[in-house]
Amino acid sequence: MSSTISANSYGKSLVRLTKVTRGKDRHELKEMAVDICLEGDFEEVYTTGDNSKCVATDPMKNTVYGLAAKHELANIESFAETLCRHFLDRNKQVRKVTVEIKEDLWLRLPDKAGEHPHAFMSAGKEKRTAEMIMERSAGKDYTTSLSCGIDEMVVLKTTDSAFFGFIRDEFTTLPESKDRIFATAVEARWTYKKQPADFNKTYELVRKTMLDVFAHHKSLSVQQTMYAMGEGVFEAVPEVADIHLRLPNQHRIPFNLEPLGLKNENCIFVPTTEPYGNIKVTLTRQPVGAAVSGRS
Amino acid sequence: MSSTISANSYGKSLVRLTKVTRGKDRHELKEMAVDICLEGDFEEVYTTGDNSKCVATDPMKNTVYGLAAKHELANIESFAETLCRHFLDRNKQVRKVTVEIKEDLWLRLPDKAGEHPHAFMSAGKEKRTAEMIMERSAGKDYTTSLSCGIDEMVVLKTTDSAFFGFIRDEFTTLPESKDRIFATAVEARWTYKKQPADFNKTYELVRKTMLDVFAHHKSLSVQQTMYAMGEGVFEAVPEVADIHLRLPNQHRIPFNLEPLGLKNENCIFVPTTEPYGNIKVTLTRQPVGAAVSGRS
Amino acid sequence: MSSTISANSYGKSLVRLTKVTRGKDRHELKEMAVDICLEGDFEEVYTTGDNSKCVATDPMKNTVYGLAAKHELANIESFAETLCRHFLDRNKQVRKVTVEIKEDLWLRLPDKAGEHPHAFMSAGKEKRTAEMIMERSAGKDYTTSLSCGIDEMVVLKTTDSAFFGFIRDEFTTLPESKDRIFATAVEARWTYKKQPADFNKTYELVRKTMLDVFAHHKSLSVQQTMYAMGEGVFEAVPEVADIHLRLPNQHRIPFNLEPLGLKNENCIFVPTTEPYGNIKVTLTRQPVGAAVSGRS
Amino acid sequence: MSSTISANSYGKSLVRLTKVTRGKDRHELKEMAVDICLEGDFEEVYTTGDNSKCVATDPMKNTVYGLAAKHELANIESFAETLCRHFLDRNKQVRKVTVEIKEDLWLRLPDKAGEHPHAFMSAGKEKRTAEMIMERSAGKDYTTSLSCGIDEMVVLKTTDSAFFGFIRDEFTTLPESKDRIFATAVEARWTYKKQPADFNKTYELVRKTMLDVFAHHKSLSVQQTMYAMGEGVFEAVPEVADIHLRLPNQHRIPFNLEPLGLKNENCIFVPTTEPYGNIKVTLTRQPVGAAVSGRS
Repeated sequence: MSSTISANSYGKSLVRLTKVTRGKDRHELKEMAVDICLEGDFEEVYTTGDNSKCVATDPMKNTVYGLAAKHELANIESFAETLCRHFLDRNKQVRKVTVEIKEDLWLRLPDKAGEHPHAFMSAGKEKRTAEMIMERSAGKDYTTSLSCGIDEMVVLKTTDSAFFGFIRDEFTTLPESKDRIFATAVEARWTYKKQPADFNKTYELVRKTMLDVFAHHKSLSVQQTMYAMGEGVFEAVPEVADIHLRLPNQHRIPFNLEPLGLKNENCIFVPTTEPYGNIKVTLTRQPVGAAVSGRS
Repeated sequence: MSSTISANSYGKSLVRLTKVTRGKDRHELKEMAVDICLEGDFEEVYTTGDNSKCVATDPMKNTVYGLAAKHELANIESFAETLCRHFLDRNKQVRKVTVEIKEDLWLRLPDKAGEHPHAFMSAGKEKRTAEMIMERSAGKDYTTSLSCGIDEMVVLKTTDSAFFGFIRDEFTTLPESKDRIFATAVEARWTYKKQPADFNKTYELVRKTMLDVFAHHKSLSVQQTMYAMGEGVFEAVPEVADIHLRLPNQHRIPFNLEPLGLKNENCIFVPTTEPYGNIKVTLTRQPVGAAVSGRS
Repeated sequence: MSSTISANSYGKSLVRLTKVTRGKDRHELKEMAVDICLEGDFEEVYTTGDNSKCVATDPMKNTVYGLAAKHELANIESFAETLCRHFLDRNKQVRKVTVEIKEDLWLRLPDKAGEHPHAFMSAGKEKRTAEMIMERSAGKDYTTSLSCGIDEMVVLKTTDSAFFGFIRDEFTTLPESKDRIFATAVEARWTYKKQPADFNKTYELVRKTMLDVFAHHKSLSVQQTMYAMGEGVFEAVPEVADIHLRLPNQHRIPFNLEPLGLKNENCIFVPTTEPYGNIKVTLTRQPVGAAVSGRS
Repeated sequence: MSSTISANSYGKSLVRLTKVTRGKDRHELKEMAVDICLEGDFEEVYTTGDNSKCVATDPMKNTVYGLAAKHELANIESFAETLCRHFLDRNKQVRKVTVEIKEDLWLRLPDKAGEHPHAFMSAGKEKRTAEMIMERSAGKDYTTSLSCGIDEMVVLKTTDSAFFGFIRDEFTTLPESKDRIFATAVEARWTYKKQPADFNKTYELVRKTMLDVFAHHKSLSVQQTMYAMGEGVFEAVPEVADIHLRLPNQHRIPFNLEPLGLKNENCIFVPTTEPYGNIKVTLTRQPVGAAVSGRS
């Protein structure tokens, strides 16, 4: 042997699940893709091919369906926790379990009396996410950390967005703009300092807050708007401890109509998917009193 | 030369356009991808490399942006017509122009007072489509044919769907089902016998009708439901002459929990993308009086 | 009823199959995706939900695996024929079967003594295709038509490609080019006037011929090169009756370095995926003697 | 302000570049997508919208094309270094630059006399990668770390792969297998303890070694084979310090032919893309003498 294993992990990815809960007057529909990843005492699987400590990935898949049958599945956060606990409880050689769930969202179709009880329409590419990491620890229970999130929340504003005053050198051909289109696909991940009373309501509040700030912010840059979105979440949702945001800048490039003898009155654009600006930030809630002492 | 050209066509595909119409209190947003295709007297471009009759595809792209600046763009149908006419008017060697537009749909974000005037959210993968074919003809004006449509309208119902009574042979392992999930991504194309007064309102009515029928139909097969959707459109939208529907059956396969010692009460499914049932039909409105005379 | 069914068809799409043929010293590997489509007397499935004539799409899928076990699968053309025949033989209500197969290609990994007997590498996105249409007819046997092809054969040449002399108007900003990059993903479909002795060898010859012509042609346009590719196939492969080619022009756009104070010596380009030129032609082999009589 | 910025970064992603080097008898072709990411003193861009320290992402894109014109581009590793250095040299507020390059690979088409001088064919989805991280440091020069790699190297073996002896519980329905298909898309990342004399030759040697081990290993699990691949690289390529491998298990599932009255002689499989086993390992070369002292 010429090497040591400095890290290893394995699991099953993209286990897709549909669960229907058939209430008397109304069906609930949940769809998701589940990723399970185990870390622990698996070195001999790699070095000698001894699989006696190996949980195969096929039963991991079966476990998703089996536990989903018993679990209420009111939210993906609690299902991720159930899955983590299962693998730690059963397998002493497992030190750490990571379960990531991405939920496909469905909206109810309208019915005369409001919402249809069992017919749905896809909400599109946007997903709700939850990632639970659970580890064996010295204490009574396992250590857990939970990250909740949103993927591909695609939004666009046609004004109230500017970008100027940046550095200019010989590689800078971009004109300054006082009024540009701002389009992005919000990716958000946040953690809670205390578990919210209702995961679903808190998720809805985080989402609504981000959309409201995006819509109303007078943006001087993607960076400034995403900072404002994070600040808005801290103000509206006291349970949130920190938030990570990634806002790819999905450029709408003004088309140069001058060679065609026409004028572009900030109305004709080319939507592009590549290249894109890739802007990221992580914000942490300031401890109570920190700002005050900072001023003194 | 050992061959003759039996068909040729060329054009520009995936010309992506964003147009913002900046009203005083409210912005309108249109996004689309445009395909342009020309047919005509282009044989020498192929056989000798003589490009003197060749409209290059790059100016086709420019034309989309140039004409979009002047066009109201209230709907994609009229923009497709404008583009077709442009290429026929300018180029005697062009016999036929096909313009297909696929519109990306945006919803307004909410605002205190209803809808936000300039902030939008993507409506997802669903697209509105229009295809105009315009040909030079002996008469005064060109011959036109228009097909309108919808792509990727993803819907699902958790009940009121059955499939039984089909042929059984040694290759048939599928159990009969009195209650299965029905999930699909509706693709629709329709033509008008007379041009509707308002393309947008008529499109909305076709769409709403298909959703209503899908939600309420007691389905005995994908085939039967799509037939009902077409019938529903004919009843609700008198302008529609014929309609083509493709409903891929995006199977939700019941997961067999028995080997795990559990029972699946029609609640746990595997969503799959492949293989899929691919079901198509084209319906033509029956002429007035046809049914009556048919009975005599 | 307000409508008549003017067309209907249904089937199973994307049935993915791997077949391993385990020779004593060498394994053969075939992977493909199969689409099956039936047309016939299925109106009542649509209009009344009577499934008694309906071959469900799930047994279609099973049939692919079942017949693959018995079939040699030396080429996809003969497997497509076997599948077509199966559905017509079994089902009187079926009038027409279309089977389209797209083969994923694998290359053998090298071994000391040449090729490895059972280890393979993916040949990439390129696929070999076969489409068989078989119809019930008045005669003794069914009527068949076969189309063979290639998808996504991605090639590029850095010179020997020009484009000039095209029409210029106020929408034309594209400069003429005597030396541009030519990149495309060849899509080809051809038919045979008589069945070749060996489908695999003939496919290889068509493919090699198209690549040779592409590499060596002095191109004045995409159109001219694809015409030459078709002519080359007619000359090299006497069995081919006609050929359809689609060569999307995957533009490499020269990057304008002048604003950066640099010069682009035809070396720096932006590869783009959209928009793209979409160029198509269908060539038919000229009957023997046609050219001669044409001159008289 | 209710929050602090605990991390931020931004840059331009998917800057696609083609460079042609026009030698007298032979052209060289390089295609790649470049991601640039900056970290540093950018807090005010987020908190106040003051862009005076902000390098916009559009000039980052221009820089890729501008520097590519001057750079030899014999390999992506040295181009990544040039890009990193450029942004640190120019911008005091930048603390860290990450440049990741993914190269699209092209093979030369054959010519009579061997390889064609300027016509190429895509090598498929496989990519060569390089990631350079360069940071400002106290010393004379910047601190650099380089990771080289391969993405999507899709391989398959039809035998010499087994999986048995794993844990069985009530969720375990997977049968043991002494002879299964092993298909994967290798993702590899490695670092060098000393810079190789020729990045291209060393990359070729790492790649060839992994393919050889994959082809010839008697596999008891994906884990065991990837460990052997890493060990093989350490033995063959002395410059490699550590290697990370991810081998998604792209299952070929034996199709159950028994309900059809047929037998599957380990020859008929369903290729699947989801779910997949996701197997990862990082190996570090053992210091010289470590194994010896380990035995004492």
